Order: sequence, then structure tokens, then C-alpha cells
Amino acid sequence: MTGKHAEQAGMRRDPHPWAADLTALHAQVWTRLLRGVHDRHAAARHPTLATIGTDGMPQARTVVLRAAEKSAATLDIHTDLHSAKVAELREIPRAGLHVWDAAPHLQIRIEAEVAILSGTEVTSIWDRVPAPSRLAYGSTPAPGQPITGALAYAKSPDPEAFGVLRLSVQAIDALHLGPDHRRARFIRDDGWAGQWLAP
Amino acid sequence: MTGKHAEQAGMRRDPHPWAADLTALHAQVWTRLLRGVHDRHAAARHPTLATIGTDGMPQARTVVLRAAEKSAATLDIHTDLHSAKVAELREIPRAGLHVWDAAPHLQIRIEAEVAILSGTEVTSIWDRVPAPSRLAYGSTPAPGQPITGALAYAKSPDPEAFGVLRLSVQAIDALHLGPDHRRARFIRDDGWAGQWLAP
Repeated sequence: MTGKHAEQAGMRRDPHPWAADLTALHAQVWTRLLRGVHDRHAAARHPTLATIGTDGMPQARTVVLRAAEKSAATLDIHTDLHSAKVAELREIPRAGLHVWDAAPHLQIRIEAEVAILSGTEVTSIWDRVPAPSRLAYGSTPAPGQPITGALAYAKSPDPEAFGVLRLSVQAIDALHLGPDHRRARFIRDDGWAGQWLAP
Repeated sequence: MTGKHAEQAGMRRDPHPWAADLTALHAQVWTRLLRGVHDRHAAARHPTLATIGTDGMPQARTVVLRAAEKSAATLDIHTDLHSAKVAELREIPRAGLHVWDAAPHLQIRIEAEVAILSGTEVTSIWDRVPAPSRLAYGSTPAPGQPITGALAYAKSPDPEAFGVLRLSVQAIDALHLGPDHRRARFIRDDGWAGQWLAP
């Protein structure tokens, strides 16, 4: 094949061949999650975390993905321990995590059990939080409390207010919106073998 | 003031003055939601819908915002009636809806009661769904069902599979990430007067 023909063939080639193979699709999910940890501009940097409110209402908010481990299938989110999401997770320690990554046309939906780490468990993580970021942990009054004016609050770094939500991923639903739509579910219980679903 | 001075003053002016006023902030939320309905490139075009799975696990997925009415405080999402989210909402008809709108630095979090409309209730809406979009409603097997291969499904428009999720907004949590962070909660029960919260 000449260079020109190779280029033309390349232009027709599927840019996302991983979407057609369960193992490759699962790997792509973790590639994207890890990119979120290391690249502040990646889609997975800012997933949406869904929990169940203490009044039973589903709750969703943007969070920052701070760590991802494919082998253990865990994801870390840092939080103020006095936030509503921590109160919610103390009652029902389960969460959904959602990413729409436009570049690979991939929706990642995660189901997880959540452990709330604090105190000496997170000292070594707190030590690595950059000083400006520490302002996000420690608020008077606590996040979500009513205040008399828009700015009637103060932020002051407080290691005692710092916690880590460690999500133990139980299931992943991956949806690829290519020329064909493909969807698969991966579960921890079968070693992430994967199962195609109708999209 | 000369034109040049006016321009300089303008450059220093707060680009989001609405964030400092409860009524203006509430109006901005609806402006952004309505933009999602009418502009396919707006952030609110593709919110994340959170529900509670039939197994109790929080679930979140991208949806398309199809209608928004500020006066009634309702939002519409179109769905295949055989999808998992409909089964979930039949059991627990409550949802969270999340938008991160980067342009105004605004996170919109909505709590809603959800009605599932179908059949003759949605005939007039179905009639306005463009033909290519109708392929999203009607799938064999149903969305989320296991299949033997990635493409072992067929889509065929089916008005009987078409439903509308009508979200009756009960509360809105708005978070503006400007030079100062501001957060407010608006609830239907007090006519959306608004209450500042610590962000």
C-alpha cells in the first residue's frame, strides 16, 4: 500500500476499536478514569456523584476524582466530613458515579460501596494536599448550613474536617455512542468479564 | 466617563452580578435550563439524572432535556418506557438532576418528584419527535437486557415505548463558583424565595 492509500484506509478505520471488545472496553474505562486523576482537563476529572439523601431524595453533585486503582477497582474523592454527602453516605454507604467523556464518546456509570476514611487514616493523603486546595476542607458554618448573607461564612483549612470517600467499584456500565451503539456491564463478582447489553 | 474608561470599568465589572441576588440567581438557573432545551450545545442540554435503583443502588446517567417551564417548575425528559430508569421511577418516583454549566460557573442541582407519562398523554409530543430521533424509543430486546453479542439488538420506532418523565421540581441548589463562592437553596414550598447556604 502506498502512503496515500494507507492514509485513506486510516481515515476510514474505526477510531475506537476498543468498543467492540469487552476486555478492551473495560480497559478503556480505566484509562479514562486514570486520565481524570492526572489531567485536570480530562472529563473524568469531574464526575457526578449520586447518593441517596437523608430524606430519601436522590442527590447528585460534581466531585473531583483524586485517585483510581484498576487492580483494586477503587476510586478516591476528597471531602469535607461535615458536608451533606458524608451524612448521606453514613446512612447509606452506596454511590453512583457518572462520567460522560466526549472524546471517546463514552459514558461511564459506576456503582460503588463507599468507605469514609478520616483522622489518622488520611494523614498521609492530607499531607499531599496543596495548601490552596486545603481551603476546601474546613468551613464555618459547615457546608450546606443556612447563612444570613451570601458571604456569611469562613473557610479555614482543618485536617479534622478532611475525609476521603473510597469507592469500591461493584459494577460498571459502559456505553459507547459510535456509528453503532454498544453497551456492556462489568461486575466485580465475575472478575470484570463483562456482558453486552442492549443499549 | 470616556469610552476607554467605560471599557476598562466594564472589564473589571463582575460578569455574573446575578449570583449576588437570590431572585436573580433563581432566574439565572431557569435561563440556563431553558437554554438547554433550545440550544443543543448548551450545558443543560445533557443533564445527569439520578435515581434509586431497584436494588437500592444510586444510579446516574446522561439524559436530554426536552422541555422546561419556569412557572410550573417542570422539566421533561423523553424515555423508552422499557428502560431501567422507568422501572426505578415506578418504584420510587423521585429524581435528582444535575447540570454543571461552565460558562456561568454554575452548578444546578434539582430535586424532583417524577410522573411517568405514556400512551395518549404523550401522543402530541410523539408527533413532534423528528423521525431519526424516534429510533431511540423501541428496542428489541429492551434497553439494558443482556445480549449475546454487542450488536445483537434492533431499534425500531414504537410509539407504545415512548414516554415522558415530567419532573416536578421541589428544590433547587445553585452553586456559583466565582471569585467568591455563593450557594443558595430554593424550594417550591415558599415560592422559590431562596436561602443562602454555606458553600
